[in-house]
Amino acid sequence: MSATDTPQVHPAWLPDAAFAPLGSRRVLVAVGPGAGPVGATVVDEVRRATAAHGGSVTVLAPGEALPDAASVRSHDLVLVVASRAAERDSGAARQVPPPGRAPQPPHPNDALVAVATDGALVAADGAPGLSPDMFVRVRAGGTTVVVAGAATGLLYGLHDVVRLGEDAFGDDAPPVRDLPVAPVRMLDHWDNIDVHPVMGQVERGYAGGSIFYADGRVREDLSRVADYARLLGSIGINAVAINNVNVHRTEARLLTDGLADVARVADLFRPHGVRTYLSVSFASPVVLGGLPTSDPADPDVQAWWAAAADRVYATIPDFGGFVVKADSEGQPGPFAYGRDHADGANLLARALRPHGGTVFWRAFVYNHEQDWRDRRTDRARAAYDHFAPLDGRFDDNVVLQVKYGPIDFQTREPISPVLAAMPRTRLAVELQVTQEYTGHQKHVCYLGPLWSQVLTFPLAEDATRDVAALVSGLPGRRDTPSGELPAGGVTAVSNVGDDEFWTGHPLAQANLYAYGRLAWDPEADPVALLDEWIGLTFPGADPRVRDTLHTLMDGSWLTYEAYTAPLGVGFMVDPGRMHYGPNVDGYEYSKWGTYHFADRDGIGVDRTVATGTGYAGQYPSPWRETYEDLATCPDELLLFFHHVPYSHVLHSGTTVIQHVYDSRADAVDVVESWVPAWDALRGLVDDRLHARVAERLTEQVRSATEWRDQVRSYFFRKSGVPDASGRPIY
Amino acid sequence: MSATDTPQVHPAWLPDAAFAPLGSRRVLVAVGPGAGPVGATVVDEVRRATAAHGGSVTVLAPGEALPDAASVRSHDLVLVVASRAAERDSGAARQVPPPGRAPQPPHPNDALVAVATDGALVAADGAPGLSPDMFVRVRAGGTTVVVAGAATGLLYGLHDVVRLGEDAFGDDAPPVRDLPVAPVRMLDHWDNIDVHPVMGQVERGYAGGSIFYADGRVREDLSRVADYARLLGSIGINAVAINNVNVHRTEARLLTDGLADVARVADLFRPHGVRTYLSVSFASPVVLGGLPTSDPADPDVQAWWAAAADRVYATIPDFGGFVVKADSEGQPGPFAYGRDHADGANLLARALRPHGGTVFWRAFVYNHEQDWRDRRTDRARAAYDHFAPLDGRFDDNVVLQVKYGPIDFQTREPISPVLAAMPRTRLAVELQVTQEYTGHQKHVCYLGPLWSQVLTFPLAEDATRDVAALVSGLPGRRDTPSGELPAGGVTAVSNVGDDEFWTGHPLAQANLYAYGRLAWDPEADPVALLDEWIGLTFPGADPRVRDTLHTLMDGSWLTYEAYTAPLGVGFMVDPGRMHYGPNVDGYEYSKWGTYHFADRDGIGVDRTVATGTGYAGQYPSPWRETYEDLATCPDELLLFFHHVPYSHVLHSGTTVIQHVYDSRADAVDVVESWVPAWDALRGLVDDRLHARVAERLTEQVRSATEWRDQVRSYFFRKSGVPDASGRPIY
Repeated sequence: MSATDTPQVHPAWLPDAAFAPLGSRRVLVAVGPGAGPVGATVVDEVRRATAAHGGSVTVLAPGEALPDAASVRSHDLVLVVASRAAERDSGAARQVPPPGRAPQPPHPNDALVAVATDGALVAADGAPGLSPDMFVRVRAGGTTVVVAGAATGLLYGLHDVVRLGEDAFGDDAPPVRDLPVAPVRMLDHWDNIDVHPVMGQVERGYAGGSIFYADGRVREDLSRVADYARLLGSIGINAVAINNVNVHRTEARLLTDGLADVARVADLFRPHGVRTYLSVSFASPVVLGGLPTSDPADPDVQAWWAAAADRVYATIPDFGGFVVKADSEGQPGPFAYGRDHADGANLLARALRPHGGTVFWRAFVYNHEQDWRDRRTDRARAAYDHFAPLDGRFDDNVVLQVKYGPIDFQTREPISPVLAAMPRTRLAVELQVTQEYTGHQKHVCYLGPLWSQVLTFPLAEDATRDVAALVSGLPGRRDTPSGELPAGGVTAVSNVGDDEFWTGHPLAQANLYAYGRLAWDPEADPVALLDEWIGLTFPGADPRVRDTLHTLMDGSWLTYEAYTAPLGVGFMVDPGRMHYGPNVDGYEYSKWGTYHFADRDGIGVDRTVATGTGYAGQYPSPWRETYEDLATCPDELLLFFHHVPYSHVLHSGTTVIQHVYDSRADAVDVVESWVPAWDALRGLVDDRLHARVAERLTEQVRSATEWRDQVRSYFFRKSGVPDASGRPIY
Repeated sequence: MSATDTPQVHPAWLPDAAFAPLGSRRVLVAVGPGAGPVGATVVDEVRRATAAHGGSVTVLAPGEALPDAASVRSHDLVLVVASRAAERDSGAARQVPPPGRAPQPPHPNDALVAVATDGALVAADGAPGLSPDMFVRVRAGGTTVVVAGAATGLLYGLHDVVRLGEDAFGDDAPPVRDLPVAPVRMLDHWDNIDVHPVMGQVERGYAGGSIFYADGRVREDLSRVADYARLLGSIGINAVAINNVNVHRTEARLLTDGLADVARVADLFRPHGVRTYLSVSFASPVVLGGLPTSDPADPDVQAWWAAAADRVYATIPDFGGFVVKADSEGQPGPFAYGRDHADGANLLARALRPHGGTVFWRAFVYNHEQDWRDRRTDRARAAYDHFAPLDGRFDDNVVLQVKYGPIDFQTREPISPVLAAMPRTRLAVELQVTQEYTGHQKHVCYLGPLWSQVLTFPLAEDATRDVAALVSGLPGRRDTPSGELPAGGVTAVSNVGDDEFWTGHPLAQANLYAYGRLAWDPEADPVALLDEWIGLTFPGADPRVRDTLHTLMDGSWLTYEAYTAPLGVGFMVDPGRMHYGPNVDGYEYSKWGTYHFADRDGIGVDRTVATGTGYAGQYPSPWRETYEDLATCPDELLLFFHHVPYSHVLHSGTTVIQHVYDSRADAVDVVESWVPAWDALRGLVDDRLHARVAERLTEQVRSATEWRDQVRSYFFRKSGVPDASGRPIY
């Protein structure tokens, strides 16, 4: 724990010590036939843990005769894949459950379950309902048994036991079923192969270089990818797109010349239940294929994509599919040929269909050459206007990937109405783990509470169906999957790089962790997830560590919001510093469509139906009425929907201008209080980690102070209203 | 003149056709002994011109017997170096006249002058007063005679004849003496060897790459430098610093490892009377020499610089000296050692002294980490506060290089009071030919009128001594040199790159031309200089070309000012686009010390003694009183010196806010009118040049419109005052 230690890659939430409770036990593992590389990972994890912590492991080979009951029950932990699932498991995560099969004869694994639980659980009863990612955990007669639907479910069940720690081995407990709500739990990497002159190696990356690429090619040494895959598997992520959605020339060739390298990456993700995807250029037939067009209606274009997909699957049989940013911020797309986005997406989907692949088609399409003088055009409307009319037109292996808000990953936005407008389309909600607009991983900003709000927001069917239900194909908020509605899932931009701590700011690891856990269970309490993360990442630490981390992190998103742009108006970030730091007018006279319209009298964007852009009308009831009416619009979104005078009184009882003044000053007081709180942990956590966080906190105080003073001064100069609190203003 | 011609380097103001009047004549040249490479250039120019245009040339070798009088007088043009001057000339321009000599016996060249002018001029009479750069032109008996003080003067006289064209060969005319006011007429290149990640190959360069460097080294092919040297010699430039004042690691090594390459460059400048300078890092003893310090008081440091200078002069005997940016924007300097800038400058001066070299030490020193909240600190005060107390402390081979305004090359600034505050210091005023703040050579912005105003501004001695006099060591505005006061000169940042037209915007060539001509004669009429440039650059063109160029260019600086930041307040440029385009608050909350303090009531910086930063008090009378008093402060500098309400009525009779509205709208109308005016010249000028200008005019209209609309909207939103003209506002 000396600061002069050679830097090593930080283990994040999987330090060896986190495996001590499991690793000191006697463990029996039976992955069954066909469990493949994921089953092998489960065995390896148990072997590694028991070797380190004094436990033991028995691995029951497929078809091997069961030991006698006493022998089975002498184990503290039994990990077993239920028979039917085990037989069908291919080793890689599946997004679409395979078709049902005829009943099969009993299998030794089912018998093992019955013996291990002393009859408390009979796998044969539960197995038909066990989807591949699902597991059941029970504690009976002093033995903890995890029965999974497939090897992936067993991996997730194993990590459930790791997370529980000693609690997994306490009193007997009835069966608990666990399964992910969303079939797709994905991370997108905006990593470039060639360093982009403005964006760098990783677009919107704040954690060093790429773990995939360096020196203009896929890395020879992909050991960081292997470690990353293990981290992702432990939190249930099952899909990763490995290159930037802005597909430049070199990256486009991953689809062709680079396939051998992509296969090397896929080989590392596969043992952790993660399928590999590529972002592809819609112009590939022209750029890579030398065709004169990329028109979806052109048979040569269709043939080119089909052949390209054939080559990919010949190399990577469990390849996930494509991610596509089309007709967006300069990327090519179907509009160039007079085709719509269903035409475009289906073109790729039909090439992937024979192989079981999926297209993730982004709904982030808007006019990025807007005239700031034109107040009728509203970027917030764009995704709905483009996509809602296409509902029902997308093939069933297309997932429409929709940013959670209508603008672009702001600290606070209303939920995208597109998510409620396309019941016949598979949808994924897109989050941003990388902190583009939330402090560049220089600021503590725990985003679990934001994502929790997004996923549980009751957007549809008179506020009875939340976002998680909408993207997971659930008929209602708390239902189990019915499989009848189109299901997509959750995706997000990763925050990982080749940084020693993975994420630049060590505490930003918690965002990656919480993302995976919320994608699995959107109703999880984000503060409880943070607690989980603390327990894993700092095992055995002094209780002050846990307390202080909660102090810093629990409310950090709201604190960040409080010192940056007020009341949902968004942006006010510095274009010249890649969206870092304050610049109130930074986007006010630009082409990007993100304005606040502040003048000497008031501020905000009128998006009402009555007098504004009509965006509020894109929502179903009751939200259209809630947002339309100044009396019901929530304070935190007031300026997103309304242009109001500075003297407007919020529901909170204060005026808009005084809220601007107070929140910013109060928030900086909070951030300042974190510095001594963190300093007090010196010696209680790893020195290098402590120093890194301390360094970033210093910058956060500086930056938050700059936000406070610029925003307060800007609005004082504009409004002329003095700050009633009398705090300094410039 | 077809647009499909292979691009060639544009000849700028030296096309072959410009030499036709001279080239068709019978010319006699007598450069005399010791005229060296500059004398050879004169001969070469005449040979080239006469070969192209049917004339003839007779070269009288040093010591060769005079032809008979009739033979001499059969020539149309006689170019001759006066005897004494010719004997002492070393070939390279000298900045300090050599000490006087004892009278010499008559020389054949003196007799030649008498014969050629039929006795109208006797060189022996004039020669003692002929400084090396001086020439006398006379037309007598049908022969034009140019007598120069040295080969450099003869080169300048030759180009005087070229500029005059046929007028040089008209009626007999009495002798006209011409000489540069300033001994130093310099250009600084902010060229980098390594491409800087932000600034590129040429910092603040808008004309492609560097003519000196490419691919991380000095170019093998320096033919563009040779052409450039010829252009500079033709307008009297006699000094060039070839690398960026921000000296990075690779560039620092020019002083040591790179000397052979610097010598290759110097060899190309030498024949045109131009001495070569290097920008050097004050930290060189540490960075290059491996010493532990760069402290000026350290004997090892002194010895290091002396040895470095010895090596430079062993390689380049006529090397000019060093340019230094110290303690400025992150560059190292003497402050680190508790020394002042006289200590720093004299350190280098003493190393150069044995070799006749000069240090150009920049006065651009200020706090670039200013807190925008602090209104007491004033960047405008910085140069005076730092340097005025040091007057008299600088060695006489130090020239203090002072930007013309107290901030940074803005479109409009008051003249730097430093220029009046240091009578015992050699001063150079620094201008900026490259259009950093004046439109990046995308906008037509003829800067001759600005520089004319600067150089003839009667700053000192109760408004009797102008800037040109102050930097040239003249006791009064129109006096001839006395040699008694410290003399520096004029320097500027070049606007040249490897662009086909040298300057990106072809019409920006006029700025380089006018700079050289004004450095020679600050009282020249900038519109007349533009006319001169047009005549040379477009010889024989349709008269509409001349008329249109005057329409576009004569007032273009004032037009640019009128659509950008108002009334001398400065900046409002976009930091994210390298100072191009509008961003009213772009520097308002930054560390750079360049603010406008606009609020809902008013705008401007209070720099008065009475209530402001006191900057106005740095001026001598009458300027301190003029600027201090709102009643006398000129409109165009109002907001530089005063914070006023928007309703303040200007001397022009309009309010500040209405001026903001009107000027910007009117100026865009002017720019728009240029497009059809230029289009009408299609076919009358070179097609490629026409197309380039047309393309840039389109961008100028777009950009000027953006300036107009952003500035008008910003101030309307802030002030709430409607535009009385009713023109659109947003």
